[in-house]
Amino acid sequence: MLDALDKELLKAVADLEDIPKGAYNIRKNGKLLTRATSANINIESNAEGTGIVVTIAPGTVNESVHIPVILSQAGLYDVVYNNFIIGEGADVTIVAGCGIHCGTASPEGHAGIHEFRVGRGAKVKYVEKHYATGPGSGKRSLNPTTKVFLAEGAQAEMELTQIGGVDEADRLNEATLEASSLLMVMERVMTEKDQRAVSRNEIKLVGADSRANMISRSVMKGNSKQNFYATIEALAKCFGHIECDAIIMDNGTNETIPSLKAMHPDAELTHEASIGKIANDQLMKLMSLGLTYDDAVNRIIQGFLK
Amino acid sequence: MLDALDKELLKAVADLEDIPKGAYNIRKNGKLLTRATSANINIESNAEGTGIVVTIAPGTVNESVHIPVILSQAGLYDVVYNNFIIGEGADVTIVAGCGIHCGTASPEGHAGIHEFRVGRGAKVKYVEKHYATGPGSGKRSLNPTTKVFLAEGAQAEMELTQIGGVDEADRLNEATLEASSLLMVMERVMTEKDQRAVSRNEIKLVGADSRANMISRSVMKGNSKQNFYATIEALAKCFGHIECDAIIMDNGTNETIPSLKAMHPDAELTHEASIGKIANDQLMKLMSLGLTYDDAVNRIIQGFLK
Repeated sequence: MLDALDKELLKAVADLEDIPKGAYNIRKNGKLLTRATSANINIESNAEGTGIVVTIAPGTVNESVHIPVILSQAGLYDVVYNNFIIGEGADVTIVAGCGIHCGTASPEGHAGIHEFRVGRGAKVKYVEKHYATGPGSGKRSLNPTTKVFLAEGAQAEMELTQIGGVDEADRLNEATLEASSLLMVMERVMTEKDQRAVSRNEIKLVGADSRANMISRSVMKGNSKQNFYATIEALAKCFGHIECDAIIMDNGTNETIPSLKAMHPDAELTHEASIGKIANDQLMKLMSLGLTYDDAVNRIIQGFLK
Repeated sequence: MLDALDKELLKAVADLEDIPKGAYNIRKNGKLLTRATSANINIESNAEGTGIVVTIAPGTVNESVHIPVILSQAGLYDVVYNNFIIGEGADVTIVAGCGIHCGTASPEGHAGIHEFRVGRGAKVKYVEKHYATGPGSGKRSLNPTTKVFLAEGAQAEMELTQIGGVDEADRLNEATLEASSLLMVMERVMTEKDQRAVSRNEIKLVGADSRANMISRSVMKGNSKQNFYATIEALAKCFGHIECDAIIMDNGTNETIPSLKAMHPDAELTHEASIGKIANDQLMKLMSLGLTYDDAVNRIIQGFLK
């Protein structure tokens, strides 16, 4: 069912050697390729036929859902709306991701709009990787949206990664946190050549004792450009932190604009940002251990994005 | 020539007990009150009659200029355009500031638009304090603008302070830095009651090895609100840092939006922000030394704004 190209893309974006264990939904070129559910995890197409609804029963633990998307059809821009309903007290991992293979001069793209409703006390880990490859010159776009609603005491850990090969990305992450909930976001974006990536993040701390920690790591190689925007709005006693680190290589450029809105006397918001080249002393140290300049740079970048 | 009220205002905004030594220009209720020049420092009204031109001869050192503004006329909104031309190699201090005394229900306000051209290798320290007082209920506004142009190797140290009593402030600071120049800005703004203060800052690092360090300290008491915006645009090998710390008391609110634009591969930009209440352990420590809660709070705030 999976050809060699499909397997290569699935390996890159979802770490899969073949069809995964447990619940999954694999989408290829805008259509369902294969799907499996489990006793606790239901997956069905939504009423409009524009995506899937993944429903995870309350109390489900140690289970995962894989929902990768692969795309290799010239000229296709695939848009999908997926909903995740995570029952109270569940603790699950969702692995998404999109791999594009472009073989022609026609553009190819994907926009996945993912909405998460995380029930009281539930935990979700969401892992999303974006990757594009292929000999074609067509523009590869990946424009993901995540909307996260955390009920009281819920937790979400989001790992959002753009590995490489993506010419254009317009990324949007939104989150609303109720009391005592926790959001951790780690976004890593690597661009090169003339690629462009924009990341917009809007986090609302609505409930008392909610906490959010957003970390962004960017590497701009070649003539690539990245824009990072993140807003934390604090409406209760809460804690929010944004950390943006960007490494500029070659002629890359970066614009970083965090926004801290403290609208409650017991809000605590912090931010740190650092944009610059790789520190020379780091490079020297690795080169004194025998690495070439290029190897030292690669080692540092890999560590930074890990 | 100075009445008791004038003296009180001058003391608050320019640390003056009486007419200062050296060059000065004192403006009262929209008109020149008194002026003195020195051998190296010329002050004259501009051609339009809308302000003054202060010209400091190249190489002038250890001299100062005081140009305070005082205002106690009901209904007056005084706007003034002042230019400062600081010759090559000079090293001078300019003390500005505006004190408003409001005795009626009519509003009073001042907008000082100050433009600094700092010559090659010259140094300027600019100290500006804003303060309003008086039994009147009229709105007191202070809307300062500073525009700084630093030639090669020039340095400017800006101390911009809003002590208290100002109902509305719209603050704008702009700076353009040529090669090897240095800008240091320390802005402190205290608001209380229903006061509003907005601070906008635009720093352009144009020349190689230019450096800018902007520190903002805000205290919001009562129902007051402050917005802080700062952009550093890096167009060369340069270093820029923004640091914003805000203390929320009572029901104060704060919005902090720094913006780092790295447009050059050798740009290095960093930012730190922290918004929140006074840390409890700091309070406890002072209270364990015998201070009351209020005294401990005041001590911390004073240290923070110092």
